Amino acid sequence: MSLLLNGATVIDGVSDKGLDGRSILMENGRILAIGRPDEIPVPADTETVDYSGKFIIPGLMNANVHLFVNVLFETLVRYEGGYEDLIVEASQVALRAGMTTVFDTWGPRRALMAVRDKIDRGEIAGSRIRCAGNIIGFDGPFSGDFDSRIPGIGSSHFVDRVNATWVENTGRHLMWLTPEAVGKEVRKYIEHGIDFVKYASNEHGGTSAGAFIQFSERTQRVIVEEAHRAGLTAQSHSSSVEGLRMSLEAGCDLVQHCNMTGPAEIPRETLELFTQKDCGAVVFPLTDNGMAVLRETISDHEWTMWKASDTNSRHLIESGATILLANDGGIFAPEVMQEPLIKGTWNGLPEEEALGRLATGHFVWLRAMEEKGMSPIDLLRAATRNIARAYRVDDDLGTLEVGKIADMVVLDEDPLQDAKNYRSIHAVIKDGALVDRDALPERPLLTAELRAPLEEEARYKKSLHHGERLPGCPSC
Amino acid sequence: MSLLLNGATVIDGVSDKGLDGRSILMENGRILAIGRPDEIPVPADTETVDYSGKFIIPGLMNANVHLFVNVLFETLVRYEGGYEDLIVEASQVALRAGMTTVFDTWGPRRALMAVRDKIDRGEIAGSRIRCAGNIIGFDGPFSGDFDSRIPGIGSSHFVDRVNATWVENTGRHLMWLTPEAVGKEVRKYIEHGIDFVKYASNEHGGTSAGAFIQFSERTQRVIVEEAHRAGLTAQSHSSSVEGLRMSLEAGCDLVQHCNMTGPAEIPRETLELFTQKDCGAVVFPLTDNGMAVLRETISDHEWTMWKASDTNSRHLIESGATILLANDGGIFAPEVMQEPLIKGTWNGLPEEEALGRLATGHFVWLRAMEEKGMSPIDLLRAATRNIARAYRVDDDLGTLEVGKIADMVVLDEDPLQDAKNYRSIHAVIKDGALVDRDALPERPLLTAELRAPLEEEARYKKSLHHGERLPGCPSC
Amino acid sequence: MSLLLNGATVIDGVSDKGLDGRSILMENGRILAIGRPDEIPVPADTETVDYSGKFIIPGLMNANVHLFVNVLFETLVRYEGGYEDLIVEASQVALRAGMTTVFDTWGPRRALMAVRDKIDRGEIAGSRIRCAGNIIGFDGPFSGDFDSRIPGIGSSHFVDRVNATWVENTGRHLMWLTPEAVGKEVRKYIEHGIDFVKYASNEHGGTSAGAFIQFSERTQRVIVEEAHRAGLTAQSHSSSVEGLRMSLEAGCDLVQHCNMTGPAEIPRETLELFTQKDCGAVVFPLTDNGMAVLRETISDHEWTMWKASDTNSRHLIESGATILLANDGGIFAPEVMQEPLIKGTWNGLPEEEALGRLATGHFVWLRAMEEKGMSPIDLLRAATRNIARAYRVDDDLGTLEVGKIADMVVLDEDPLQDAKNYRSIHAVIKDGALVDRDALPERPLLTAELRAPLEEEARYKKSLHHGERLPGCPSC
Amino acid sequence: MSLLLNGATVIDGVSDKGLDGRSILMENGRILAIGRPDEIPVPADTETVDYSGKFIIPGLMNANVHLFVNVLFETLVRYEGGYEDLIVEASQVALRAGMTTVFDTWGPRRALMAVRDKIDRGEIAGSRIRCAGNIIGFDGPFSGDFDSRIPGIGSSHFVDRVNATWVENTGRHLMWLTPEAVGKEVRKYIEHGIDFVKYASNEHGGTSAGAFIQFSERTQRVIVEEAHRAGLTAQSHSSSVEGLRMSLEAGCDLVQHCNMTGPAEIPRETLELFTQKDCGAVVFPLTDNGMAVLRETISDHEWTMWKASDTNSRHLIESGATILLANDGGIFAPEVMQEPLIKGTWNGLPEEEALGRLATGHFVWLRAMEEKGMSPIDLLRAATRNIARAYRVDDDLGTLEVGKIADMVVLDEDPLQDAKNYRSIHAVIKDGALVDRDALPERPLLTAELRAPLEEEARYKKSLHHGERLPGCPSC
Repeated sequence: MSLLLNGATVIDGVSDKGLDGRSILMENGRILAIGRPDEIPVPADTETVDYSGKFIIPGLMNANVHLFVNVLFETLVRYEGGYEDLIVEASQVALRAGMTTVFDTWGPRRALMAVRDKIDRGEIAGSRIRCAGNIIGFDGPFSGDFDSRIPGIGSSHFVDRVNATWVENTGRHLMWLTPEAVGKEVRKYIEHGIDFVKYASNEHGGTSAGAFIQFSERTQRVIVEEAHRAGLTAQSHSSSVEGLRMSLEAGCDLVQHCNMTGPAEIPRETLELFTQKDCGAVVFPLTDNGMAVLRETISDHEWTMWKASDTNSRHLIESGATILLANDGGIFAPEVMQEPLIKGTWNGLPEEEALGRLATGHFVWLRAMEEKGMSPIDLLRAATRNIARAYRVDDDLGTLEVGKIADMVVLDEDPLQDAKNYRSIHAVIKDGALVDRDALPERPLLTAELRAPLEEEARYKKSLHHGERLPGCPSC
Repeated sequence: MSLLLNGATVIDGVSDKGLDGRSILMENGRILAIGRPDEIPVPADTETVDYSGKFIIPGLMNANVHLFVNVLFETLVRYEGGYEDLIVEASQVALRAGMTTVFDTWGPRRALMAVRDKIDRGEIAGSRIRCAGNIIGFDGPFSGDFDSRIPGIGSSHFVDRVNATWVENTGRHLMWLTPEAVGKEVRKYIEHGIDFVKYASNEHGGTSAGAFIQFSERTQRVIVEEAHRAGLTAQSHSSSVEGLRMSLEAGCDLVQHCNMTGPAEIPRETLELFTQKDCGAVVFPLTDNGMAVLRETISDHEWTMWKASDTNSRHLIESGATILLANDGGIFAPEVMQEPLIKGTWNGLPEEEALGRLATGHFVWLRAMEEKGMSPIDLLRAATRNIARAYRVDDDLGTLEVGKIADMVVLDEDPLQDAKNYRSIHAVIKDGALVDRDALPERPLLTAELRAPLEEEARYKKSLHHGERLPGCPSC
Repeated sequence: MSLLLNGATVIDGVSDKGLDGRSILMENGRILAIGRPDEIPVPADTETVDYSGKFIIPGLMNANVHLFVNVLFETLVRYEGGYEDLIVEASQVALRAGMTTVFDTWGPRRALMAVRDKIDRGEIAGSRIRCAGNIIGFDGPFSGDFDSRIPGIGSSHFVDRVNATWVENTGRHLMWLTPEAVGKEVRKYIEHGIDFVKYASNEHGGTSAGAFIQFSERTQRVIVEEAHRAGLTAQSHSSSVEGLRMSLEAGCDLVQHCNMTGPAEIPRETLELFTQKDCGAVVFPLTDNGMAVLRETISDHEWTMWKASDTNSRHLIESGATILLANDGGIFAPEVMQEPLIKGTWNGLPEEEALGRLATGHFVWLRAMEEKGMSPIDLLRAATRNIARAYRVDDDLGTLEVGKIADMVVLDEDPLQDAKNYRSIHAVIKDGALVDRDALPERPLLTAELRAPLEEEARYKKSLHHGERLPGCPSC
Repeated sequence: MSLLLNGATVIDGVSDKGLDGRSILMENGRILAIGRPDEIPVPADTETVDYSGKFIIPGLMNANVHLFVNVLFETLVRYEGGYEDLIVEASQVALRAGMTTVFDTWGPRRALMAVRDKIDRGEIAGSRIRCAGNIIGFDGPFSGDFDSRIPGIGSSHFVDRVNATWVENTGRHLMWLTPEAVGKEVRKYIEHGIDFVKYASNEHGGTSAGAFIQFSERTQRVIVEEAHRAGLTAQSHSSSVEGLRMSLEAGCDLVQHCNMTGPAEIPRETLELFTQKDCGAVVFPLTDNGMAVLRETISDHEWTMWKASDTNSRHLIESGATILLANDGGIFAPEVMQEPLIKGTWNGLPEEEALGRLATGHFVWLRAMEEKGMSPIDLLRAATRNIARAYRVDDDLGTLEVGKIADMVVLDEDPLQDAKNYRSIHAVIKDGALVDRDALPERPLLTAELRAPLEEEARYKKSLHHGERLPGCPSC
C-alpha cells in the first residue's frame, strides 16, 4: 500500500528553502516521488492525507543519545533482566518527539542491539537505533568513570556483573596496552555487531573534570583505522582542547560535545581542522536563559567552563564547521529528577532549557543554536542531513529525496521562521508509515508517575532524620 | 481425620525423660491422647504411622528469628513489592528444619503479619509466626542503626520509603519524647496487630558497639506496661550490663541476647534478677570450635567481647535462669555469603558453627550449650517449653500434652543422648498433620543458586579493577 | 597596698538595685569595706580612683567555657606541646572581657590545671579558672564524639596520644561498666585535682543529634555521689528531656545547656524539678535576630530544635529556676572562622549575635535573655551570684560584699537600664587590683591575624581545583 | 690545602676495572692528579691519608630522590615554616650514605633551592642537590594526585597554602591548555632557577593506577624543547608503555621508573628507543627476596604489575640501555613507619629489601640489579657516570678524572666483587674534603626517635576504641 501526502510545504533539506504545495508519495518504506500534485502518478490502493498548511521536514535525527542513561544503582538492580524494556521505552519517546533515527553512543551493547534489531525488523515501534555499545576505554557504571562509591555498597557479584555488561573487553585496562594490542580488542568488539566506534580521547570526568588524556595519539589512530577497516565510522568523547585536536588528527568522522573543552577555548587552528578533515562537530549548547539559570547554582570555576563552551559553539558556527545536533538525550528515573541536588546540574534546568532530556532536549538545542546565530536551514541540516552524512548513512537518510527511506515529520508551523516551531509536531512518518504517537511509549517505566508515598513514609519525613546534629554543639 | 503415631519414645517436655513405646493421637490440629497403645481409643478414619525406634519431641521453637534479615540495599530494591515472598521462603526453611513456631523480633511489620495470617489460616505452609515488627527505638535499614552509607546513594524517595516501612511511628525520634509520649506511640503501634513488643534498651551498635542506652529506665517501664496492658509480652534488645539490668527492672518477660554485654561480664546481682523477676534469658552462644575459628579473624578488643559473652552464658546456666534458644536466624542473599569480608564475622563461620543461619543455627545452639554444661532435658526445654512460657503461649505450645496444638518433631536418634541428634529429623508434624518437608521451600529465592557469571564478567574480573594503585608510588 | 574606688553606683548583686555614690575599699585581694565615702576608713598607702558616673558590678562569671575548644586536627598538631599557651591566651581574652572567673567544662586536664595554678599563684594574668577536665563518658577529639574522620588520616601514634590526653580513664568505655565500677574511675579522676565533675547524661551528638542516653540513672547517681563525697559539685551534659530529667533526679548541682532538648519542649514537671532540687539551669539562648539569621541556613528539622530551645528558655524564666549564664565560650582558629561552611552554624552568626565567642558571647547572652523577659537584676545575678552559688564558691565570689574576693567590673553605662550596657567596660578589677586590659592577651596565637596568602596561593585559588567536574556529564 | 689519598685501589669509572695502589691528589675541590705515588708531585701543605687495602670509587649519585617526601598532613602542619630543616636533614643522611650528589625530582621548590644554595656555598654540610621542584602537571599534596581526603579535613587556608607551595603555576590545570600555552608556563617556572625539568607523562596514580596520559605527545615535545632551550635536561614521570614511548619520542634525557608500566611489559621497539634516542633509563628494582615478601601482602592484580616491572628491568639490561640508579629515596616520619598498614607497601619491606629508604635504598638497588644480571662495572656506572651523563653534569661529576670535582667514596671491600660491598663505607670525600659522617645528620627530626607514649595513651590503647562493633549484630 502506498501513502500520499498532499498540500504541505516541503523542506527537503536539499534545497535551501521550503517548496509550497508539494506532494510526497511513498511505498515500501521509501520515497517514490516528490513534486507538484500533477507531476505524481498515484497508484491504486494509495492512502492520501491532506497536509495543506503544514510543513514537512526530514525525520529528525540525534547524533548522541543514551537510551539507557540512568545507571543509578537502584535502577540497575530494579530492571536487571529488563534493560531492553527501558531501551524500547526510550526509543518510543524519541520517535514520538520526531526523532526517526537516533545514534546511541554509550550503553549496554547486547540490550541495545537486541532492541535495534527488533525495531529494524518492524516487530516493535521505535526510533531507528544505531549504537556503539561502550565507549572504548571507559570502565563500567560502578567505577571511577561513573560512580566509584558503589563497589563495597553493592555485592561484588552484582557490581562485577553490571560493569562487565557495559565494559566487556573495552575498559580502562586498554590504557595499559600498546596501540596494536588496543586495536585487536577494538576489532573483537566490532565483531559483536556494533554500528560505529566511539572511544575516549579524554577521561570521563570523575577524576580531573575531564582533563586527562585516555589514549595516546598513536592509539587513537589505530582505533579509527580499525573502525574504518570494518566499514564503520569512528568518533571520540573529547573534553579538552588537546583531546579534541588529537581526535581530529586521528581521523575521527565526528567528535562528541566538541565545544566542551574545560575552561579553555578551542584555538583557531583546531577549529579549522574540522573543515580540513571533514569532521562533524557535535555541539552541546545551552540557551541564554539556561546559562543564566545555571549561573546561579554553580561555582566560578564551573562557570568558566560553561562560558568557554558557549564561546566555542559560536566560534564553531563562524568557522563553517559541519555542526550536528545532539544532547546526550536520555530518561532519568523520576526519583532522580525529584532530588534536590539535581537543581545544581544541567539536568535540573527548567524543562524549556534542559538540553539533556530525550523528549524535548533537541528542541532546546535548536533554539539555543538559533540564538547563537545559526541560519534556519543550517539548523535543519544540523538535525538531519549533517548527521546522516557524518555517520555515512546519507544514502538512506537525512533528506527528503526519491529513493531514500521515507522518514519525515509534519509540523503545524514553519520551522524556518522560528526554531521553536519544531515543537509543533503534527505527525511523524517512519519507514513510509504514520506513527501512532499517542500510543507511545507503549509501556511507561521510567516515564511513569512516581507512586505516592506510604502513609508511614510521609510521617517519617516529618520526624527526625539520621545524620542531623545537635544545634549548639561547640565543635561540630 | 485423625492421625495416630505409634511406637516412638516420646519426650514430652513435661517429664524429665523419654517414655518408650508411646502412641500419640491427634485430631483437628490438637493432641487427643498420649499413652501406651492400649490406653488410646482409635477413631475410625485414622491414619496410623509407625515410628518404632524413633523419638518424638515437641515442635522446636525459636525465640528470635528475622525472617527478613537481609536488608542489603540490593535485596530491598530487587524484592520491593515482594517482601512477603521472602518471608514465606524463610518460614518454610524454618519449618523444614523442625521449627514449628518462630518468634520474629524485627522486620517489616505489614509483610510479616500478612504471611503470619496466611499460615495461620492454613493457606500456605510455613512455621507459625509471631512477630514484633520494628524494635521500638530503632531507625530503618538505611540509617545509623544499620547502614548509614545508603542515604545519598539510594534516591531519597526509595530510602525514605524503605525506612518508613520498617520504622513507622517507632524510630529513634522517640528518644526525644517523655516516657508518657513514648507510651502513646507504642500503644498506637500495638493496635496494628503485632504479637509482642520489643524495644531497644541499648542502641543497635552502629555507633559505640552497643554501649549507648536508648531509653531511660522510666521510659522502659512505660513501654513494658503498655505491652502488658494490651495483653502482650515485652522484651528488650540489650547489649550492656546496664542495659540488661534496666530491662530486668523494667519488667521484661524476656531479654534478647542477654549474654552479650560488651567486654564486661554480668554482675552476680543482675544474674539473680532473672529468677527473681521470672524473666526469660535468651542466649546466643558459640561452640568452642566456633570461638576458636573466630579468634583468628578478630581484634583483641572484639575477642574480649566474645569471651565475656561466653562466660555470661556459663554463669546464666549456673544461676538457674530460664534459658531460651534463639539465634537471630535468617537467610542472607547468596551474593552476601560469597563476599570475602563475611569471613571475619560470625555469619562467616563454617556451617557447623554458624549460629545465625536459619536452617541450621538452632542445632549449633544446642551443641554449644551442651558444651557449656546444660543438661539434656534443659536443652530440650530451652528450645520448647521455656520459649512457650516466656511468650505466654504455653497453653497451646511447648510440650506434648493432651489438648495442646499437635506440633512435634520425629527424630531418628535420641536427643537426650547427644545434642547433635537434633539434626536427625525424620518428620515434622504441625497442627496435627505431617509436613511435606521435601517440598520446602516451595519457591527458593534467597536460597536459590546464584546464577553463573556472564562470560564478560569472568573476563572482567581478570583485568584491572578500579581503585588499584601503582606499585612503587612513594607517597600513596 | 589598698585600693579605694570612689563615686560609682555600686550594684552589689545583694541588693536589687544600684546604690549611688558608694566607695569600695579593698586590700590583699579582698573587699575591706563598701559604703558611703564617709563610712569608710582609708588606710595610708591607698590608691584612690574616682569612678563617679560609673557603675560597679561583681566580676562577671561564665558557667561554661572551653578555653581550648578548637580541637581541629591542624591546631592540635601545630600547638602540640604548647596547649598551655592557648589556654593562657583564652583566659586573658576572658579577663579582658570582664570575666574574672570562668568554669571550663571540657578540655585537656593537665594543661588547664597548670594554667589555673599559675594564675592562682599570680604568676600570670588571666581569668580565674576552675575546670573539670574531660566530660565523664566522652571519647577524645578524634572519635565518634567529635571528629571520627581523623583516625586513618592522622598517624595512630598521634591520634591515640591526643585522645588519651583528653580522655585518660573517663571515656566511652565506662558505658560498659556497672555503676560501682564507673564510680571507682570517677574517684580516680577526681584525685588528679579537678575542681568539679561533669558527666554525659546524653551523648555528644555526633550520632543521633544528642538523643542517646550515655549513663543509666543509677550510674548518674553514683557519679554525683562521688563528686559530693569529694566535696565537689557535679553537673551534666544534657540534650534531651529524659537526659535532663535524669540529671535532675541524680542530684546534679547544675545542668549544662538544659534548654537544649532536641525537638521536644521540657515538660512542666521537669521544669519544676529545678527549684525542688535547687539545681542551676545553664541556658544557651540566641537573640531574636540571631534566630532569624540562623533560620535562613538550616533545615526545618534543625529549626524545630532551635525553636524548642527558645521556648524552653522562656519557660525556665517563668518557672523561677535559677538561671546561669554560659555559652561554651571559646576561641576558634581564624582559619576556621574563615571557612564558608561556618556560615551555617551558630558560630557563624554575625558577631553581634554569635553566642559562642569567648570575648563577646556573654554580652549576647545578656541581650538574648533580656529579650526573653528576664529582669535586669536577674540578668546580673545569672552572670554572677547564681553561678557562684551553683558552683559552691559563693563564700568568695559572686557578689560585692565585705570579705569576699575583690573581683569587679566598672561600666560606663548602667547595666540595669539596658543589657547592652554590659559591653561598656571601663575597667576590670581582679583580686583587688586593676587589670591592664590593653595588654591582654599578651601573646596572641589563635587571636592573631591570619597571615597573608603566598603569591602562589592566590594564583592557585584562581586555577582549577581538584574535585571539580565536567559540565555536561550526563550521569554525574 | 691539598689532600692526598694513598694506597687504595681506585675504580675511577672510566676504566673497566680497579687500579691498585693508586694515589689521588686534590685541591680546591677538584682532582689535581691520579696515578702511581711516584707519578704525583705533592705540594707542601698537603694532608695525606693512607687507604691501603681500601677501594675508592666516584661519589655515589642518585637520579631520583625526594628530600621532602613525607607529605603527611601532620608533618606538613608540624614543620610549616621549617621545611628547609627537613631537607637539610635528608641531604645529610644522603651524604653520610655515600651519595655526594642527589637529584631531587619532586618537592617544595623554594625550600629545596634554598638548601641547595647553602650547600653549594659551603655554609652547611650535605649532599649536592639538583632539583626540579614540582612535576609539571601534578597538583599538590592535598589533591587527587596525592591525598584527596585532606580538603575538608584541613582548613582551606592551609590546604591551599600547601598545595600552592608545591604547585605554583604548574599543576593539573595545565592539562587544559594548548601545547604552546603549557610551554609558556614551563618557561616561567624554569626562570625561578630549577636545575632540570620533570613533567608527568602519566598521571600520578591516585586515579587509575597511573594509566592515564597527562599530556599529549605534542605538549610533551614542547615541554622538552623549553627545557633544552634553557640549557636544562628534561625527564618524565612515566607509568605505562604508551606514557614511556611518548616520553622517548618527545626527546627526554631520562625517564623515571621506566620499568614500571603497569601490568604490561615494555614492547621491544620501545626498549630500542632508549639507545636510539640516547635516553637514560631510571629503573626501580626489587630484590628477589623483596619480591617474595611483597607477594604475601598484595593482590593478584598488583602482583602482575610488580612482575612486569621485574621483567622490564631484565629486558632493559639485555637491550643495552643506559641504566640509572634511583629509588625515590626519602625519609618518612617514624609515626608513619610504625603504622600497621605500611606492611603492605614497598616501604614496609624489611630494611634489607626496602628500596625507597634514603639511607639504604641505593644499596638495595645495587644488589637487586646484580641479581638481575648487571655486570659489576655497569652497576658502578649506573650509580655514577650514567647519572652524570644523563643529567649533563659529566664535565664535573661521575668519574674520577683529573679536573673533575673531587667527590669519592672509600670502601673497605671491593664493590666489583660483590654489590653488597657498597655498604662498607669507610669514608666519604666531597668537594675534595673528608666528610665528618658521624656528625650527620646534625639535627635529627624525622630520623629522631619517636617519643614514648603518655601514660594515658598506653592505657587508652587498652580500652575500647571508637568504631568497633557489637559481636553478633545480625546485619552488620
